[in-house]
Amino acid sequence: MNPSNVLRNVARATRRPSVAAVPRQRLLATGLRLSGWRTVTTTSEVADKPGAAPAKKEVKFTADSYPNIQRGSQFSKLTAEDIAYFESICPIVSTEKGATQDDLESFNTDWMRKYRGQTTLVVKPKTTEDVSNILKYCNERKLAVVPQGGNTGLVGGSVPVFDEIVINMSAMNNVRSFDAVSGILTCDAGVILENADSYLRERGFIFPLDLGAKGSCHVGGNVATNAGGLRLLRYGSLHGTVLGVEAVLPDGTILDDLSLLRKNNTGYDLKQLFIGSEGTIGIITAISIVCPQRPKSQNVALLLVESFEKVQETFVKTKEQLSEILSAFEMMDINSQRLVRQVTGKSHPLKGEAPFYVLIETSGSNAEHDDEKVGALLQNLMEDEIILDGTMAESEAQVRELWTWREGVPEALGHWGGVYKYDVSIPLSELYLLVEDVRAKMSSLGLLSTPENPDNVVVDVVGYGHMGDSNLHLNIPVRGFDKRVEKALEPFVYEWIQKRRGSISAEHGLGVAKSEFVGYSRGPTELAVMQRIKNMFDPNEIMNPYKYIKA
Amino acid sequence: MNPSNVLRNVARATRRPSVAAVPRQRLLATGLRLSGWRTVTTTSEVADKPGAAPAKKEVKFTADSYPNIQRGSQFSKLTAEDIAYFESICPIVSTEKGATQDDLESFNTDWMRKYRGQTTLVVKPKTTEDVSNILKYCNERKLAVVPQGGNTGLVGGSVPVFDEIVINMSAMNNVRSFDAVSGILTCDAGVILENADSYLRERGFIFPLDLGAKGSCHVGGNVATNAGGLRLLRYGSLHGTVLGVEAVLPDGTILDDLSLLRKNNTGYDLKQLFIGSEGTIGIITAISIVCPQRPKSQNVALLLVESFEKVQETFVKTKEQLSEILSAFEMMDINSQRLVRQVTGKSHPLKGEAPFYVLIETSGSNAEHDDEKVGALLQNLMEDEIILDGTMAESEAQVRELWTWREGVPEALGHWGGVYKYDVSIPLSELYLLVEDVRAKMSSLGLLSTPENPDNVVVDVVGYGHMGDSNLHLNIPVRGFDKRVEKALEPFVYEWIQKRRGSISAEHGLGVAKSEFVGYSRGPTELAVMQRIKNMFDPNEIMNPYKYIKA
Repeated sequence: MNPSNVLRNVARATRRPSVAAVPRQRLLATGLRLSGWRTVTTTSEVADKPGAAPAKKEVKFTADSYPNIQRGSQFSKLTAEDIAYFESICPIVSTEKGATQDDLESFNTDWMRKYRGQTTLVVKPKTTEDVSNILKYCNERKLAVVPQGGNTGLVGGSVPVFDEIVINMSAMNNVRSFDAVSGILTCDAGVILENADSYLRERGFIFPLDLGAKGSCHVGGNVATNAGGLRLLRYGSLHGTVLGVEAVLPDGTILDDLSLLRKNNTGYDLKQLFIGSEGTIGIITAISIVCPQRPKSQNVALLLVESFEKVQETFVKTKEQLSEILSAFEMMDINSQRLVRQVTGKSHPLKGEAPFYVLIETSGSNAEHDDEKVGALLQNLMEDEIILDGTMAESEAQVRELWTWREGVPEALGHWGGVYKYDVSIPLSELYLLVEDVRAKMSSLGLLSTPENPDNVVVDVVGYGHMGDSNLHLNIPVRGFDKRVEKALEPFVYEWIQKRRGSISAEHGLGVAKSEFVGYSRGPTELAVMQRIKNMFDPNEIMNPYKYIKA
Repeated sequence: MNPSNVLRNVARATRRPSVAAVPRQRLLATGLRLSGWRTVTTTSEVADKPGAAPAKKEVKFTADSYPNIQRGSQFSKLTAEDIAYFESICPIVSTEKGATQDDLESFNTDWMRKYRGQTTLVVKPKTTEDVSNILKYCNERKLAVVPQGGNTGLVGGSVPVFDEIVINMSAMNNVRSFDAVSGILTCDAGVILENADSYLRERGFIFPLDLGAKGSCHVGGNVATNAGGLRLLRYGSLHGTVLGVEAVLPDGTILDDLSLLRKNNTGYDLKQLFIGSEGTIGIITAISIVCPQRPKSQNVALLLVESFEKVQETFVKTKEQLSEILSAFEMMDINSQRLVRQVTGKSHPLKGEAPFYVLIETSGSNAEHDDEKVGALLQNLMEDEIILDGTMAESEAQVRELWTWREGVPEALGHWGGVYKYDVSIPLSELYLLVEDVRAKMSSLGLLSTPENPDNVVVDVVGYGHMGDSNLHLNIPVRGFDKRVEKALEPFVYEWIQKRRGSISAEHGLGVAKSEFVGYSRGPTELAVMQRIKNMFDPNEIMNPYKYIKA
């Protein structure tokens, strides 16, 4: 609570060496696929319900988890002739050709081990023409397909539900071109995000999207799911940075909208429909994207704030003073910080306690200037009594340390056995109210743990997230899954969001998981137009069926 | 050519007061509608052919200029009953009710006085419901309509061709909401851009779009035409900043996609189709947009560069060193600067001469930091011999003065009687090659003025533009319009652009002017999909017919 704490840190930090390598990003990239869902970082929260089983356990078939979904009667079944045709085009994995269920496991099952399909055929096209030939054939034969990128999604969108053919894009993984003057990169859809970013790093540029799954996810999948991630506050959404898309339509038509231009006002911006379409109207085979120069310096500060109103004031002041260098503004409530402390046993970098914590990151071109700006901001925030305390990282190690108090939240939450999770967008002024309302509800139902009843099923109700993007992660850690908790949460949370015109899926998409709830965030008129677009592109409904928007 | 010139200026500039009022923007906003096309600023170049007649002359009917366009035989003619219906909904201007052709003049004729329609009815809806009732009726009666905003377009998109009913949006001009925490503004489509920006200025924010026509153009029209403008390099395109659109479909359906969320992955991003659709699939009645904090400081520098290769090097270095504060990077060739000098009689701020001039603008949150960054950049550019000379504005007056050498180009070009103008996007490495190729062509045909033949019809071939956006303005000032020049230019220029996958319309759109040339920038597959989208939304083709993409 002592302002001198801030000022001392700021004074010491004025000539910190610049952090060109952005260590936090390195941290995020490690071992995602191996370590399972509990180590997933912020932007790749696990889906809304913690149905993920331990790694050893057999994953339930999606068709069994969702008994209401029936296989489309219009779809054909694969024949030996079909297999022979696909084999003539590109490498395949097929039970017909001796593949075992184990061989198909990684294509049928999502990485959270929550969704499981029953395909017997995976095709791995090497060129756009391969994709075109495959889709044309499937469309004529009415064979359903699932486009599959890195299979790092959280809503079951990239694995089959029944026997859909998996079109795996990993063999299309070349950078096609890069122009170091304009910063425009063109690459195949199957390029892994981290590889694209490494390619750019060597040339002094940065991919304008970053997320926890970067070591596995494909840029094509990122575009197809309109991934949000850690850099959205700074570089904007993919709708602004993606310049072009090459896609194959269900009938095999190659739509070449792979523009290398920042400005092109010649007709409807078709590529926009593919951004976030989750493989339902075609397969993205290549993208072009404008990439910024890589920032040379990075700062991270952690602040202590006494109310959500003050958090909002902090946000306004921060945008005002850090303006062009602000790259993250993350909010965590005290419950989240207590859980991290409890689970890790570490002591918190801020001595006092208050209802809210804010993590600010800057990325800029001049370390000295950035240090000065952040220092001045902290001083002003203290003097104006907007924050109670704050600290600023003085080394790469401290940058990492401060981030752990944000990024360690998902792992800490999983400590008690289960977590109910929601990834939502809410207009900023009411962002935290959802957490308070859910907590009040759990309390009134006698489900929330208290000093008097420390073993109640709900450990806590926690809120944190990308405040800069109005994106809240509502989490309810529990001692065990419980029907009473589920009944209290749904449809309560969805209705709450609907009333405020929020989004039930801020950045994770719909897939199988959210498909039935889309009506909470979209009106019937919007859904009707979406359905007409779907029908226009994919009249046979072969593209990623049973998902996304419901007919 | 003396490096000390740069360094002296930089030294003097280190404590220049910050330029909070952004004087250049004030300059741009003045008197646009009154002063005619020759004073239009950079981003509102007049259309590709200088058919604009002097203000006094009668404007030719578009139907006469384009004899190939025939009135759609499916469209009904207005009856007294129709007029009575529209009058029951909202204010109208109608010959049936005593309006004269003069009363209708400003609705029928574009501000360049190049396009002229023949409507007898203008409706002025006050609410979204009014627009819905109007369109529903028109769709059922098969009455064609033209949505009209500020009527500041350059391609004839916002005036009728025949007797289409003008739906003028000027009566829908309220700000609906603004959230000073998130910076999200929601307003009616008919709000004038400058009014929106003034509203935001009072609150410390800025509209993330700026263009010469801001005193007249509507934000709805900006979105409907995907306006580019002066801030694109910094704030990105409207596809990234617009968060939501409320639009009325041709059948009267109100599509409420007026999201206030930065992230919302729940289905196809429908609003994107309306951004740049030029009123062909519905009428935008409101928009929501995320607005940045208003920058506190501004710097402008003018540089002298010996080759286009060095201009590209300058661009790379500038992006690297100015990074987050760069807000404009404009390129002008020596011919453009000579013409401005010749016409204005002013002496150029840079003493020497070289083939290229670059204007750099920064907008940031800290004047001292920004001055230092720009100073260091100029010093590096000099030391590395990338530029020959440079100067940096030291006062608001100097900021304005330096900008006149960029913004005075269009006016200077008009000095000889006529200008052939093209607004195109080209991949950056070949941006200036188009100018050189056109000059060589004019020269080889003996059309270009030379010391030996100073009276040849082509005064010069000039290139300048938004280098940061790969957006070139190719201009050919002539002593009089000449069929030989036209024959040399078209289809040569369009074919040249097509070969490089450029855009024949970077930011001005298609309207009537470019509709027939869209095939040079879009393939048949893209056009076919666009046509299907058009048919899906507007099967009766009542929305802004005869324009945009051709059936």
